[in-house]
Amino acid sequence: MSLENEIFEQPRTLQRLLDEGWPRIQAIAEGLQRQPFDYVFLAARGTSDNAGRYAQYLWGAFNRLPIALATPSLFSLYQSPPRLSGALVVGISQSGRSPDLLSVMHEARRQGCPTLAITNTPDSPLAQAADFVVDILAGHEEAVAATKSYTGELLAIALLSIALAGDAERLAVLTHLPEWVEAMLAQHAAIQQLAQRYRFMEQCVVLGRGFNYATAFEWSLKLKELCYIAAEPYSSADFQHGPIALVEHGYPVMAVVPAGRVYAGMLELLRYLRHERHAELLVLSDQPEALRLGQAAVALPAEVPEWLTPLVSIIPAQLFCYHLSVARGFSPERPRGLRKVTETE
Amino acid sequence: MSLENEIFEQPRTLQRLLDEGWPRIQAIAEGLQRQPFDYVFLAARGTSDNAGRYAQYLWGAFNRLPIALATPSLFSLYQSPPRLSGALVVGISQSGRSPDLLSVMHEARRQGCPTLAITNTPDSPLAQAADFVVDILAGHEEAVAATKSYTGELLAIALLSIALAGDAERLAVLTHLPEWVEAMLAQHAAIQQLAQRYRFMEQCVVLGRGFNYATAFEWSLKLKELCYIAAEPYSSADFQHGPIALVEHGYPVMAVVPAGRVYAGMLELLRYLRHERHAELLVLSDQPEALRLGQAAVALPAEVPEWLTPLVSIIPAQLFCYHLSVARGFSPERPRGLRKVTETE
Repeated sequence: MSLENEIFEQPRTLQRLLDEGWPRIQAIAEGLQRQPFDYVFLAARGTSDNAGRYAQYLWGAFNRLPIALATPSLFSLYQSPPRLSGALVVGISQSGRSPDLLSVMHEARRQGCPTLAITNTPDSPLAQAADFVVDILAGHEEAVAATKSYTGELLAIALLSIALAGDAERLAVLTHLPEWVEAMLAQHAAIQQLAQRYRFMEQCVVLGRGFNYATAFEWSLKLKELCYIAAEPYSSADFQHGPIALVEHGYPVMAVVPAGRVYAGMLELLRYLRHERHAELLVLSDQPEALRLGQAAVALPAEVPEWLTPLVSIIPAQLFCYHLSVARGFSPERPRGLRKVTETE
Repeated sequence: MSLENEIFEQPRTLQRLLDEGWPRIQAIAEGLQRQPFDYVFLAARGTSDNAGRYAQYLWGAFNRLPIALATPSLFSLYQSPPRLSGALVVGISQSGRSPDLLSVMHEARRQGCPTLAITNTPDSPLAQAADFVVDILAGHEEAVAATKSYTGELLAIALLSIALAGDAERLAVLTHLPEWVEAMLAQHAAIQQLAQRYRFMEQCVVLGRGFNYATAFEWSLKLKELCYIAAEPYSSADFQHGPIALVEHGYPVMAVVPAGRVYAGMLELLRYLRHERHAELLVLSDQPEALRLGQAAVALPAEVPEWLTPLVSIIPAQLFCYHLSVARGFSPERPRGLRKVTETE
């Protein structure tokens, strides 16, 4: 039962990172501030790449840092790495063992760039190759499908943003995070019930924008890993540039729609999808008008500021995928054809 | 019949860009070389974003430039744009009219960065906002689904790479491009026949890596826009980090597998998918052993160097999607729910 346990462990793993990780992350931020860099070059795969998408928005919005997501094959297969002058090179990996990420870190060291690893395995090759290491302190993750390491990576990214910006206000908000995650976990019976409706769903799209672009990707990945459903993630903007053609009567659309800067545009799109395209909507939101648009909905806590919503909105998505996997007769503890550590070149 | 005409027009539009565009692109490259920049910050949507993925690999491998794909909502909705010091800001858009791309260009100008627009509409707002403008000279594109503007954007990206590197060898290879595209178009009857097999396909994945990561994305987008098939693109590496769990007996996998640096890894994955997971493979390749792995296959010309294959391999993919759309009883000239110009904030 490691997956279920790890989902429910998250209030504690996040509390541990807040308590024990914060002083170390402050020290790392001080070290980073002595390094000159113009932008971040970020390498990750799978769930950790989705955490990287959160960094792209959070560090962009609050630290004004542009983020380039790496193309590891240029380093490994093409052996033609880009010049990284001006870059802080960041690798994110639960295991710290994928050879393609390692080749990015080694090349960054060779070129003399500052390097940072965010990992759950502080003695891993990735961590050993980096100047700075953030240990997400999630404890051993046994389940193939990553859950507590994902929220740990998100929180590490948020803490780094706060430490770099010296932002006491955002830090104070974080003290409530474990209770918000707990509040979502308390809805597990309702989410188990709700998941039954999707027993025969074969495909869907998952929409999120801004900070929750990461949530759309991670929810999609869990639907594929645990439920074998072809779920494709989109920002609400990219979705309108072509893929919206997919939507016919009853087409399932999952949407993460908290209050905030992207809310108005998302709401307008959901209204169009529901009323003009007759889509089937599952809505995660803290706003009653958005929740009412869904044939199904899960309410998020209203007090969570937009930048922090990805850490809360992924919890019902994890529970949903877990229970849907069981409802479809699969074993969420043993996804077919996957190993815990994927070593790609 | 604008879509069909535009697909078949590509040898001529590409020839025009080679003849008339090259001197202008050389001048632009000279201008760019007088601008100091460490990396490229690239903004695009839909098909043009897929062209941007080609730039990410081509400019990375041959010009050693790191490419950050922009997050336009940070500029438009969050009004919290990143600091762009050290960046060349590039916008790619057929129409040059999406407001979110414009907000990226205007902010780049405000911050004093060099800016470049790649567009089919040289009097568009995007072009007017940029220091340098590459006109892809594809002529008016009427069909909602972009085809000739995509290959035009790819060729403009390749010509810029060549001009910046002063690479006479790659330039010489390009003289053969129109005939290679013509050779693919000549296979249209066989591709029409092959498309019938997929009449009832509801979903699939499309694999490509390195330079053809762009092809996987663009082929997927055309399958969604024209055939309403949930097609999800992956690099062969990302695919193994979770989504491979989707593959059960008969699951359809499209793969772009030309000879080159990514070939050995792709071939190994295709063998596993065919023999161990019993997937259904459609293979585009110039290698007999890869072609034999597919239940269906389209041979690519063997002489095309790997870096140029995306301009050739997308042609059978376009024809495939066109004919599959017709076979499914849709009108590829009028995709549902799409307009030619999508204006997202």
